[in-house]
Formats: sequence, C-alpha cells, structure tokens
Amino acid sequence: MNIPKSSYPRVVIIGGGFGGISLARNLKNLDLQVVMLDKHNYHTFQPLLYQVATGGLEPDSIAYPIRKVLQEYAHFYFRLAQVKKIDPSEKLLETDIGPLSYDYLVLATGSVTNYFGNTQIEAYGMAMKSIPQSLNLRSLILENFERALLTDDLRERDALMCFVIVGGGPTGVELAGALAEIKKGILHKDYPDLDTGRMQINLIQSGDRILKEMSVQASEKAESFLKGLGVKVWKNVRVTGYDGKVVTTKTDFSFESATLVWAAGVKAALVQGLDAENLLVGGRIKVNTFNQVLGHTDIYAIGDVACMVTEDSAHGQPMMAQPAMQQGKNLGENFARLLDRRPLKPFEYKDKGSMATVGRNKAVVDLPKFRFQGVFAWFVWMFVHLFFLIGFRNRLVVFINWVYNYIRFDREARLIIRPFKKDYSHYKS
Amino acid sequence: MNIPKSSYPRVVIIGGGFGGISLARNLKNLDLQVVMLDKHNYHTFQPLLYQVATGGLEPDSIAYPIRKVLQEYAHFYFRLAQVKKIDPSEKLLETDIGPLSYDYLVLATGSVTNYFGNTQIEAYGMAMKSIPQSLNLRSLILENFERALLTDDLRERDALMCFVIVGGGPTGVELAGALAEIKKGILHKDYPDLDTGRMQINLIQSGDRILKEMSVQASEKAESFLKGLGVKVWKNVRVTGYDGKVVTTKTDFSFESATLVWAAGVKAALVQGLDAENLLVGGRIKVNTFNQVLGHTDIYAIGDVACMVTEDSAHGQPMMAQPAMQQGKNLGENFARLLDRRPLKPFEYKDKGSMATVGRNKAVVDLPKFRFQGVFAWFVWMFVHLFFLIGFRNRLVVFINWVYNYIRFDREARLIIRPFKKDYSHYKS
Repeated sequence: MNIPKSSYPRVVIIGGGFGGISLARNLKNLDLQVVMLDKHNYHTFQPLLYQVATGGLEPDSIAYPIRKVLQEYAHFYFRLAQVKKIDPSEKLLETDIGPLSYDYLVLATGSVTNYFGNTQIEAYGMAMKSIPQSLNLRSLILENFERALLTDDLRERDALMCFVIVGGGPTGVELAGALAEIKKGILHKDYPDLDTGRMQINLIQSGDRILKEMSVQASEKAESFLKGLGVKVWKNVRVTGYDGKVVTTKTDFSFESATLVWAAGVKAALVQGLDAENLLVGGRIKVNTFNQVLGHTDIYAIGDVACMVTEDSAHGQPMMAQPAMQQGKNLGENFARLLDRRPLKPFEYKDKGSMATVGRNKAVVDLPKFRFQGVFAWFVWMFVHLFFLIGFRNRLVVFINWVYNYIRFDREARLIIRPFKKDYSHYKS
Repeated sequence: MNIPKSSYPRVVIIGGGFGGISLARNLKNLDLQVVMLDKHNYHTFQPLLYQVATGGLEPDSIAYPIRKVLQEYAHFYFRLAQVKKIDPSEKLLETDIGPLSYDYLVLATGSVTNYFGNTQIEAYGMAMKSIPQSLNLRSLILENFERALLTDDLRERDALMCFVIVGGGPTGVELAGALAEIKKGILHKDYPDLDTGRMQINLIQSGDRILKEMSVQASEKAESFLKGLGVKVWKNVRVTGYDGKVVTTKTDFSFESATLVWAAGVKAALVQGLDAENLLVGGRIKVNTFNQVLGHTDIYAIGDVACMVTEDSAHGQPMMAQPAMQQGKNLGENFARLLDRRPLKPFEYKDKGSMATVGRNKAVVDLPKFRFQGVFAWFVWMFVHLFFLIGFRNRLVVFINWVYNYIRFDREARLIIRPFKKDYSHYKS
C-alpha cells in the first residue's frame, strides 16, 4: 500500500476510535513510523450518535477527519483500509488494499453490535453504532410517520408509531428520552393531521434495572425521568425475535412495531489471525497490564477489543471511551520507554465516573466521590461531551445546535436525506 | 392519501423548491386548503450544493424540513410523494401513495440535469442537483485521493487527480474554484505522501465565455480569478462522451479523468399528462403572465418548469431561484384576488442581478445598475446567500462554518460518510 520504508520501527494502529487517536497523539514526537488504518476516513464521536438519529445534530459535527488529526505529525501515514487477517509469524497484515508489514501492531478496533446470534433481529432490527446506521434510523423514524398518515387502519398506524428500544444502557436510555422529547415538542406541530399522542416508546431491559453499570440511585432517577416523559420502561423482559413487524419476548406478550432498535450489547471487533480461543476472555483479547497480547511481545490491544484482567476488574475495564483513551495514552508513553529501553509502566484505570442524559435538564451523573441528577447533571453532561469532541468547529456547531434546540424545543435536522427503504409490504396501505 | 375534505377549494402544489415555498407562504391566510407534495421531506438550498460536495458545509445546514415551513399555517398538508401523472380532465393526480384530486394545481417541479440525450455521460458522470448527489461527489473526490496513494502508475495517479467539470455556469465555476482552494490549502497537508501538486482542475465551456448569462466583465474577471487559482479553463470545447475513464471532446483532444462533473445544463422537470408538445416551449410549460398553463384555467406552473414568453424575455425567465420566488409570490397574491373575484395581476420580473463566487475574496456581481468584482462582491455574495437560506439555525451554522473556513483555510466536512463505490476496475491498483 505504498508506505515508504523508514529507518524507524513501524507501528501499525488498526482503528481511529477513541483508543487509536489517543495513542497516535502520544506517539507524535517519537522515533517511530506510525501507520493508522481505518475503514472510515473519520473518527466518530459515538456518544452523540443518538442525537444524529433523532435529528438534533448533523453527522458532520460529530465526525472528524482522521487525516486532519494526524496532519501535524511527521512520519504518520493514514490508509483507508479494512484489515482481513493478521499473520503474527510473518508480522504481516492482509488488507483490502494489499499487504502491510509491521514492527509493532496495535489493535484498537473497538466493538460491534452484539446480536447474541439472533440473525433475525440482526436482519430486521436497527443498530446505532456508526454514522450511516444512525442516519438510516433517522430516515426510518421519519418515514414511519409519513407512512402512518396514509393508513386508516388504526392497528397499522399504531405499529408505525410504536418504537421498541432493546437495551437499557446509556444508548437505549438516551435514544428513548430523545424520542419522547420529539413526541412532546415536534410531532404534533409537524403532523397536525395525525394522532401523534398514540406514539409509543418502549424501552426494554433484560435485567431488573436500567443503567446497570451506574449506581442504583442513577438507575432509579433515570427511570423516573423516562416515565415522566411518557416512555414505557419494561424490566426483566428478554426480547427473543423480530420479523420486521412483531417483537416477541420470552414472556407471553409482544409488541407490534415497525421499528426495533437493538442497543442491547456490543462485542469486541476481532480480526482473523488473532481470534484464537486461548487468546480471548469474554470474547475480548486478553492483554497484560502493558496492553500486550499474551504470547506476542510485538502486538498490543487497547480499548473495547482488549480485556485486561486485574484485581480491580475481573472482567476487564468497561467497553467505553474512557478506558480506551487512558490505555491509548499509557501505551503511547510505554512506546517512549520501549525506545529508551526503560521499563514499561503498567496501566492503571482511573474511573472518572459515568453519566447519561434523558432529556432537557434531565441527566444522571455518578462521580467516584458523589452522585447527582437533574439540571446540574445535565449541564455537566453537556460540558463533558463538548470537551471530548474533537475539533473547535465541531464543538462550536454542536454547542449552537444545543442552545438552539433548547430554546426552541426543536430539532431541525429531521431530514430524510437518503430513504432507508424498509420493506413495508406487510402493511396494507 | 388521507387528506380530509374541506369546504375550501384545494390547491395542490407539486414541489417544495424556491417557487413552491414562496407560493405556500403567500397562501397562508387565504380560505384555501393547501396540499404540498415533494419527493423529499426538505427544501434544498441548491446554490450551496457545491460547498456540500467540497466538504465546506454539512448537508443538514442547507436543507430545511418542509413540514417546519408549513407548521404554522392552518389547512396546510404535506405529503412525501412522487407524482406519476396528471389527469386534467378529472382534476386528479396519480402518485406513488395513491390518487389526489385538486381544484387548483400548481406545478413547481423545478428542473433536472440535462444530459442532452447522452446516456453514457448520464451513466458515468456526476451531477450536483440534489443533496445525495452532492454527497456522492464528496465521497468520490476523497476516494480518488485515497486511491491515488496506492498506485505507482503515474498516468493512473494523474487520472485519479484530474477533475473535469463540464459547464461554465455558476455551478461549474463555483465548484472549480472550491476544488482549487482545496488543492491549495488542504491536500498537501492531508496527503503529505502524495504529489498533490499534480492535481488538475479543468473547467470546460462549450461557448466562448464562462458565466455567459452575466456581463462580459464578470466573465472575464471570473476567468482570471480561476486561472489565478490554477484552474484550466477550456472554452469553445464541446464534450462528447465519458466512459468512466476518458473524456472525449469534439476536437481531437481528450482527458484521462476518474471524475467528470456534468453541470452543463438543466431541463424542466415535466410530469406526465401535461407534457404534450403543444403545451411546451423550449421543453418548459408555456404559461401566460398569470402563470396559467395555456388552455387550463385551473393549472398553473411557476419557476424553472414554466416558460412565460414576454416582450422582455423571449425564452422565458432564467431558470434560477429569483424568478421562481417572484412568480410564487405573485401567484399567491393572485389566489387572493381569485377568491375575491378581483382581476388577476400579471407577473413582472424584477431582475435583481446575478452573482457567482470563485473563492475566498473572489466573486463577481452584476446588479442592474452597476457591476463589481473582488472582495466586496464576495461579501455581498455571502450576505445574499445567508439571507435567502431558510431558518435561523441554518444561517448561523453556515455563517460559523464560513468564518471558520476563512480563518483556518479549512473545510472539515471532508468525510466519506457513505462511499460512492465508483467502479475503479479499469485501474490497475
């Protein structure tokens, strides 16, 4: 793939997510040739995808060109590529644009949606892990309402206006809250000739509380926020199937719904050649405290794809942005030590807390030392998300959209730019 | 399509472009039921599509939900629909979501790209008349550079970095200028390992000057601006074909290019049932000075699709936003007169001038009374475009992007959100 030979050792980073970018930034002044590979030419700020899906933000403001991040660093190369296979014995990658050799390899491939083997849900459900997926969901939501206008069959109309979100983590909670606000603030104005009061938002959680990674206090408050907004929260319900029309559950009730959003889990995005059973724990790649893959001194894994079992975290760090960024930074510093032949520094996770937002003035925040909910939590949530967005322009545009949406109770990006083209053929109209 | 019966006469407007929206706004207080049909759920601000294509603006900031425009008016209905056929004798429309009757019909369907029957160029060339088309072009431009990195064949690399824009109207001129600025300000930073100096931008005009609808002074200044930016301007050259690889012309030279953008003409977007030869002039629907279609007192046409032959304009008004908006307004006022049984007011076109921008600090403006070019013209161009954008949020976001791009010499929306997937198979790499 035309990467020039260099006298510096070559580090190949697969993935330009939170982990990969954080690592790249920490390698900038080292005597290394760095090659970053990603299947997109941009970094995605995943925590705000639900706002793209619900028309509150444009996709371009939560994406950032990877080339622009790397622009100022010497000896950095980016290639738009999909890695097919790793050959550790030859230190070689096989990609869709040709082979690439490495001296050090870092897997920062993140995670993909986990359907737990349910191919039917995978085929008919919507996911929200990438910008194109979020735009598809945006189109489908709007198309459902356009379609609901056309039918006289009340049952069909209700199904078109019934949204089922599976998974009570931050993604599911935030999406459910955003849909509830659309119902409250926008729909009756946009569709005066539709009985939008019948719109139903169902959030389904298999366990006994939503936001289960957060405190009980946060879970309870978030649930009460959601209920206040009119979201139906179903706990201890396990979804078993979806044929594009009916959502079935393990219990005896089901939902007739044109839209199922699957936010019930993620799994490590593995690459062939490094996916042997003995390398994995919980489907993620086992790493030591230096993020080294066991048995491979020249291969590292960071972020969602890596599982670092320590005394504090028996199942590895949570699959979220924070551990990925911290591991990227630590590994970057360790590359400096490696080049200087100094001993490596083990990774220590600093849990800075977690948060989720439900709607305007409604968020929950768990910090290591204290917890709070409501308006102040909501401002903290916004500030933190703006802070971690890459790029001044993105921050400014997102901020302006938030201020505008807040003042006007509006979301103007309700645009069907590319129709999703759901198969509505089982509906009569 | 479930439009309730009303005691008011029903006006159906096909198209939510400049003409349709302007008309709708002028009907808001009348005793009419208004139904607007469009195949998109948003209004597109076409003059800025080239900035979406070149990564300077996000698509969502130049689109505006049609439902939001109509939100505040009573008796207004919007349907996302494609009209298949008009049956004037039954006063009925056939659409993809069912039939619709009308008392008055207004065609505001605008125009589509005119390939003048060249199906090869239609198949392999890129157009820039809609947001999805502009996003496809954005993806292709970026994909070409990613691909150029991978080849050692200089001829192939040059073809990937060679852009051919056919048509020297405002669209072609503005796109050529924007590409030249990307070459100058961004490419060498984004692709330090590519000889981006070899990128070629060719603007091809069949006639003897670009911007032929404007003054000679504007044409000459725009050409000199373009040349200053490194664009090759080819005049009196007629493009005859493009197979995805080679652009042929009527003269004996050709261009090897992976990208041909066709901006050489538009034609009226006709609807079946009202496209009989005797109703047309220059491919557009003949209308009288009240925008009435000849022989149909209950059917009107406005904007690009209509041709109003008057003493001042032998070929009808130019196919641009201004005449469409003015005709929409006049027709709206005439509907009020119609309801009051007052005599209708003939349309009079007020030519407010025209303008085009080439790049930063470089624009040309022709006003009825005077002409100017350069920095001031550029500010006027920006001000006018911001003014005509719909929506406060859109104006603010576009303005911020412009300020940012101006200060930073940057365009951050260089994102391949959905790959265009050009067939590169005839290239070796």
